[in-house]
Amino acid sequence: MSANAKKRVGILGATGTVGQRVIHLLRNHPYFEVAALAASDRSEGKRFVEACNWKLPYEMPEAVKDIKVQAIKPPLDCDVVISSLPSDIALEVEGAFAAAGYPVISNSSSYRMHEDVPLVVPEINPDHLDLIAVQKKNRGYDKGYIVTNPNCTTIGLVLALAPLQQVFGLEAVMMTSMQAISGAGYPGVASMDIIDNVMPHIGGEEEKVEEEPQKIMGKLGAGKIEIAPFKVSAQCNRVPVQDGHLESVRVKLSKSATIEEVAAALSAFTGLPQELKLPTAPARPVIVRTEKDRPQPRLDRDAEGGMATVVGRISKDTIFDFKFTLISHNTVRGAAGAALLNAELLVAKGLL
Amino acid sequence: MSANAKKRVGILGATGTVGQRVIHLLRNHPYFEVAALAASDRSEGKRFVEACNWKLPYEMPEAVKDIKVQAIKPPLDCDVVISSLPSDIALEVEGAFAAAGYPVISNSSSYRMHEDVPLVVPEINPDHLDLIAVQKKNRGYDKGYIVTNPNCTTIGLVLALAPLQQVFGLEAVMMTSMQAISGAGYPGVASMDIIDNVMPHIGGEEEKVEEEPQKIMGKLGAGKIEIAPFKVSAQCNRVPVQDGHLESVRVKLSKSATIEEVAAALSAFTGLPQELKLPTAPARPVIVRTEKDRPQPRLDRDAEGGMATVVGRISKDTIFDFKFTLISHNTVRGAAGAALLNAELLVAKGLL
Amino acid sequence: MSANAKKRVGILGATGTVGQRVIHLLRNHPYFEVAALAASDRSEGKRFVEACNWKLPYEMPEAVKDIKVQAIKPPLDCDVVISSLPSDIALEVEGAFAAAGYPVISNSSSYRMHEDVPLVVPEINPDHLDLIAVQKKNRGYDKGYIVTNPNCTTIGLVLALAPLQQVFGLEAVMMTSMQAISGAGYPGVASMDIIDNVMPHIGGEEEKVEEEPQKIMGKLGAGKIEIAPFKVSAQCNRVPVQDGHLESVRVKLSKSATIEEVAAALSAFTGLPQELKLPTAPARPVIVRTEKDRPQPRLDRDAEGGMATVVGRISKDTIFDFKFTLISHNTVRGAAGAALLNAELLVAKGLL
Amino acid sequence: MSANAKKRVGILGATGTVGQRVIHLLRNHPYFEVAALAASDRSEGKRFVEACNWKLPYEMPEAVKDIKVQAIKPPLDCDVVISSLPSDIALEVEGAFAAAGYPVISNSSSYRMHEDVPLVVPEINPDHLDLIAVQKKNRGYDKGYIVTNPNCTTIGLVLALAPLQQVFGLEAVMMTSMQAISGAGYPGVASMDIIDNVMPHIGGEEEKVEEEPQKIMGKLGAGKIEIAPFKVSAQCNRVPVQDGHLESVRVKLSKSATIEEVAAALSAFTGLPQELKLPTAPARPVIVRTEKDRPQPRLDRDAEGGMATVVGRISKDTIFDFKFTLISHNTVRGAAGAALLNAELLVAKGLL
Repeated sequence: MSANAKKRVGILGATGTVGQRVIHLLRNHPYFEVAALAASDRSEGKRFVEACNWKLPYEMPEAVKDIKVQAIKPPLDCDVVISSLPSDIALEVEGAFAAAGYPVISNSSSYRMHEDVPLVVPEINPDHLDLIAVQKKNRGYDKGYIVTNPNCTTIGLVLALAPLQQVFGLEAVMMTSMQAISGAGYPGVASMDIIDNVMPHIGGEEEKVEEEPQKIMGKLGAGKIEIAPFKVSAQCNRVPVQDGHLESVRVKLSKSATIEEVAAALSAFTGLPQELKLPTAPARPVIVRTEKDRPQPRLDRDAEGGMATVVGRISKDTIFDFKFTLISHNTVRGAAGAALLNAELLVAKGLL
Repeated sequence: MSANAKKRVGILGATGTVGQRVIHLLRNHPYFEVAALAASDRSEGKRFVEACNWKLPYEMPEAVKDIKVQAIKPPLDCDVVISSLPSDIALEVEGAFAAAGYPVISNSSSYRMHEDVPLVVPEINPDHLDLIAVQKKNRGYDKGYIVTNPNCTTIGLVLALAPLQQVFGLEAVMMTSMQAISGAGYPGVASMDIIDNVMPHIGGEEEKVEEEPQKIMGKLGAGKIEIAPFKVSAQCNRVPVQDGHLESVRVKLSKSATIEEVAAALSAFTGLPQELKLPTAPARPVIVRTEKDRPQPRLDRDAEGGMATVVGRISKDTIFDFKFTLISHNTVRGAAGAALLNAELLVAKGLL
Repeated sequence: MSANAKKRVGILGATGTVGQRVIHLLRNHPYFEVAALAASDRSEGKRFVEACNWKLPYEMPEAVKDIKVQAIKPPLDCDVVISSLPSDIALEVEGAFAAAGYPVISNSSSYRMHEDVPLVVPEINPDHLDLIAVQKKNRGYDKGYIVTNPNCTTIGLVLALAPLQQVFGLEAVMMTSMQAISGAGYPGVASMDIIDNVMPHIGGEEEKVEEEPQKIMGKLGAGKIEIAPFKVSAQCNRVPVQDGHLESVRVKLSKSATIEEVAAALSAFTGLPQELKLPTAPARPVIVRTEKDRPQPRLDRDAEGGMATVVGRISKDTIFDFKFTLISHNTVRGAAGAALLNAELLVAKGLL
Repeated sequence: MSANAKKRVGILGATGTVGQRVIHLLRNHPYFEVAALAASDRSEGKRFVEACNWKLPYEMPEAVKDIKVQAIKPPLDCDVVISSLPSDIALEVEGAFAAAGYPVISNSSSYRMHEDVPLVVPEINPDHLDLIAVQKKNRGYDKGYIVTNPNCTTIGLVLALAPLQQVFGLEAVMMTSMQAISGAGYPGVASMDIIDNVMPHIGGEEEKVEEEPQKIMGKLGAGKIEIAPFKVSAQCNRVPVQDGHLESVRVKLSKSATIEEVAAALSAFTGLPQELKLPTAPARPVIVRTEKDRPQPRLDRDAEGGMATVVGRISKDTIFDFKFTLISHNTVRGAAGAALLNAELLVAKGLL
């Protein structure tokens, strides 16, 4: 794709924590360039550099500083929109953009579980994009459509579950998370709630993690996804960590396996993004570490640019078959990078 | 018991994190007074105020400041010893004290799983103290004996499991902990390992939590404990919290129950320490909170002076029967307070 | 004062961080009882237990749970109001209460620097309460009046400066603060701004600290305060600490002194609250520690129930005369306790 | 310099926090390659990957994994040594290497204040390298010599002071630091001392910061440095931040200036490393930010790859002339990067 043919991206929720990550990941991107930025009323009409309380430890790209922030509604002068809107407004707004002819790549939870909306992790279920045709027909969309990526806690988890499902069969998953504060956006978690403390509650999180994996890892057949039959139990906690969701996981498999076989299945896992060498695809989607005290948020969240799930401490469980710990960067692989990888896949498939 | 009849306590490991808590809890105690302090070679011979790097947010009691620190070996001029020694030296030292005629109340893990050593949580298994007679006979002890309390993560957990076992029967427990740094003592956890981070490994912890509950909740019969048959799976993590171990728990019960019945069983739980009104006994060993974001370490660890397990977020689990979150103060109920409550029970039973 | 003659207190801003501390400090108070709770529109009409997001690690007192939260305006059924309102609304509201006949004891900054409003730290300038008469005359108040306490960073500082001024004379003060997050209220500081970070800016704080000490330590004469002539320079930072403002201080004195003389002057300092044995008065308003690594927020903020300034690291400065470090509990001595001590002083002086 | 002519570097203290940074910064370096790794007895003889508890959030470079760790003494098979040894052993060891013919580039404090040892910040006093000739003569070194870089707190400070001295003259500096835990190495600061806390003491730090700047900013004449006459006062604190020392600074200048002039002088500052385009030289050694809440450790420590001092909050001081806040990455610009820039300067000057 030549530089002058770059797709022009509009970012919905551009001033938010995920919006900022999307902007950062799009600097010097081979397929895409930032064309339009949309955010809440408070920001509308301001230059982005004035509207945005930039919280990343990188400089704001020069190219976006002078872009004038627009209202979150069509039309926007762009080829595709990446949305990181709060779920309460995403339902209406993303639907409006799709209806107005925009491909919508969404981080929001609003459409994830709709039957005709693909919930895609490109290494796992790229074929679910075939639902776009169904969706267009159902909803009367012309060129527009909606593709979603999972919740930030789900995505790190399913990257480790998918190889296990493929190789050994998966029956049940117990997951307890220790999630980073950036997952709640800015200002998000009050510091009085998290310094010298853990918050044992994240609104709506457990419910999402308990239902999204089965859709992602389900089979597409006859225009419909057959939800995978394994069960997931989730307990979600917030810890004083800037980035990176750590998850303590137990799995029950269909076939017996050794620790080495489980590690091998995880390490060997790759998918279409690796095959297509998509720009944002990690070389290794799942990295297995054998040190007794890894993975850790601070040391492992940025593996493969934050796009890999790092798994460690694989051992036999006393009740299920195996237990292990994983880390995934919640605003990269868990949000901005997930959307971007979906966008790249859509380009590669000629859908964008 | 009159003030002038106070039992004279010797503290092994007096300069450590738990030793300091024991000293703090013994200020103005109706049954006990600090008589001797023993610690490692480095401290030996110094006045306690000079030997001890006091890390509690309370003043060091005046009464202990000038006590000269002694070697960790018998004889010590006292009626009973409370030991918080590292497990690698506890095996030899605690045995030597028991053989020398001292009742030893131990926080260490060395003797916990020995068949003839009671592992006691006074609300749950005070009858296990009957093992003392067996132990004396087995080991040829005269007046001395060893009584242990559980690991700091176990104890918060079993206080919530015992009422469930009693009322509904208990089949399996999955527990994921988020543990405080004080559990590793001082200097303990390096700050570079825990600021903006979680450590997914605590040496030996998972193994302890997976076997201690079944002994504590087992039945004593014919001089031997019948280990309870439920299974425990543990994943233990360290988080940047000063005090208080938070645990995400799922349980599988023998009988069906409602959330309200589970909450009621937990709230109603009391035992012998409450009946005897032991000085360190919490009025409510288990407190159930119904707010969606409780318990939290900072807000709930000091409930009942740090002696209660606070349970919240009780809800139906998708795989097991129920899931909930609990907090327990690891150096109070989990260590110093546990030992002290055992000591009080021994006095009440005429064993001390 | 007999129990049945307790003054009835109304708390303005009752649901806030400082309001909660006031309520906690008033449980079992010998002079006062909580009679009315007022807070923002959002809370109005609700029972306090429902309106308040209680964030203290103590139980909410039973006595306040069912009090119905009222609007922040007169009349309130009480003898005196303690106000912890945001400064933007305090100017109007506190004036209205004073005009309506209520003694107002205020934590807010709105009136502190008004010429006829006493800014009182009872150990230092209890005589400034004589301004009340001037104020009443100026403003046409009948029974009502306004008495203020300083900013939370100022108050810890002036307790250490006043003895130096009295004994050696004070010429200049350079203060750099490391302030706790509770000083910003709840939700206050966003966790993304403070985990693994320091915020080098606290709005309006440096200005307050640079002018309040000279009023507090000024002389009252002829109905007017002669501002003390020393200069203060302040740089204020926010650090990831729950409670307790730490301050690095350098002072230039009028007379030469030794480190021992400085320490002795600080340790010897007491005032009218100690003489009158006011209930909230610390036995020692200033505590000097000689360990090389004290004071620390975690270990020293609660000294004397949070009412003392703890000073340490007194040494010769290369430019000014001395440098030292101090800690003061920002929501106790720095706010709720300061107001309460003022209230107690007013009772003792027959002004309430 | 062609790739096959790379200088071969030996790293003393290779397993430490700074040693790890040096290794990371040397990956793909145009002038240097890692040739030898030396560390304490405990590590000797092991492969580096086994000896080193790697704590950087980057992968350990493949090239060093299999290098066998050697004893910290000559001979080492390399052209130059970079030393990050604890000061207690550096005096003897670095002297031995210099005597054995090795150029020694040292982060340690042992030789910094020796009259014939250059203490160099390449942007400020590259001419001080002329002391090498004096040193060789004094000490009878043949090819070996010692060049030092300042303490990690000093270096961030002097980069901001030097332009002020050059443009306005500098009379006095008051600095209060809030320093990162990585400055104490690993395990270093105990987590119990720093979670929800600040440590007001760092051994030896204040003394270093109070004397190093005047040597660095002194004039070299007749084989001797004329110490600059300004005074420095330092108060040093440790805060719960992984990397980046934040400093609150006041300065007294010889000439009057406006805030804009001060900002302009800082922003305009460059030196020989920029002119020579040394590989590790930051394009802008001092970056001035104008937002009211910058610089912050998390957002600004990595500016220019961690090699810049970021200054903000420049304003008029009430006592001195100006106050401002600065941040500097303590293990990059403050240690590993400082040594490396010195090494690059030595190459550029033909001294290596």
